[in-house]
Amino acid sequence: MRWRAVARANCSVARSLAVVGERWTMLILREAFLGQRRFDDFQRNTGIARNILAARLRALVKHGIFQRARANGGGHIEYRLTDKGLDLYPVLVSLMRWGDQWLAGKDGPPLFLIHRGCGRTTRPAIVCTHCGGPLVAREMLAVPRAKLASARRVLRRAGA
Amino acid sequence: MRWRAVARANCSVARSLAVVGERWTMLILREAFLGQRRFDDFQRNTGIARNILAARLRALVKHGIFQRARANGGGHIEYRLTDKGLDLYPVLVSLMRWGDQWLAGKDGPPLFLIHRGCGRTTRPAIVCTHCGGPLVAREMLAVPRAKLASARRVLRRAGA
Repeated sequence: MRWRAVARANCSVARSLAVVGERWTMLILREAFLGQRRFDDFQRNTGIARNILAARLRALVKHGIFQRARANGGGHIEYRLTDKGLDLYPVLVSLMRWGDQWLAGKDGPPLFLIHRGCGRTTRPAIVCTHCGGPLVAREMLAVPRAKLASARRVLRRAGA
Repeated sequence: MRWRAVARANCSVARSLAVVGERWTMLILREAFLGQRRFDDFQRNTGIARNILAARLRALVKHGIFQRARANGGGHIEYRLTDKGLDLYPVLVSLMRWGDQWLAGKDGPPLFLIHRGCGRTTRPAIVCTHCGGPLVAREMLAVPRAKLASARRVLRRAGA
């Protein structure tokens, strides 16, 4: 199966991967979240070949993840994350957290995240929007829309 | 630059991507989180070619994300997520949430997540482990270990 077909599949994971599920693309996004906006800075910091970087940036602009603009109304070209792009932060930060947890060498995680809101070093946690409890795989059910009502009934009967 | 070099880079995002940053791998993980454990089920649900699936599963076992075992001590071969594998849930669920938000068609998100803990349909949110506030890109600073103390001082002076 080709990725174009997978992207059409009725699955939000597959659809997201069709847009950002390429490793160089993720590294470009990492740089953008670290504050980079210029072609040459993306290139230097990722080591990506210039032609591939150009193609990836074009695709990210086409998908509305970057907005292409001139700095200060006339300078060099910048690639700025749109709201859609900024909303990819949880994806990047989840990859970082997993790497910190399982792949960091003896020196520990290379980067720390400071949450300006509270001024503390933080580790991102995924929680339930309702109860605020941590969302771990074993406690989750993924249910198609058509089966939502019956799944809720089963859970209520089980006393969840 | 080749990915082997990128993976050695001192960056947890790059390291994670070197292990799971391939789209078919992510779809295999999606299936695992939906409860699948068997080669044929992975194959049917993703449409991935059998030789590629076999290679990806081998790599995931090698990296300690799946454990290979016989069902009920003697049946067919199963691929079970280890703790390291289960800990990838935030990555998958963040990709799903972004796709739900930005790429869902007119029918809306195809899958809903129910949190057994509270019995409610939930949307995963990324929050600060300290203050519980939402972690959004604009409020975050990524700081190398060596600069952590000075970054904290600057923030304190700024009254954050």
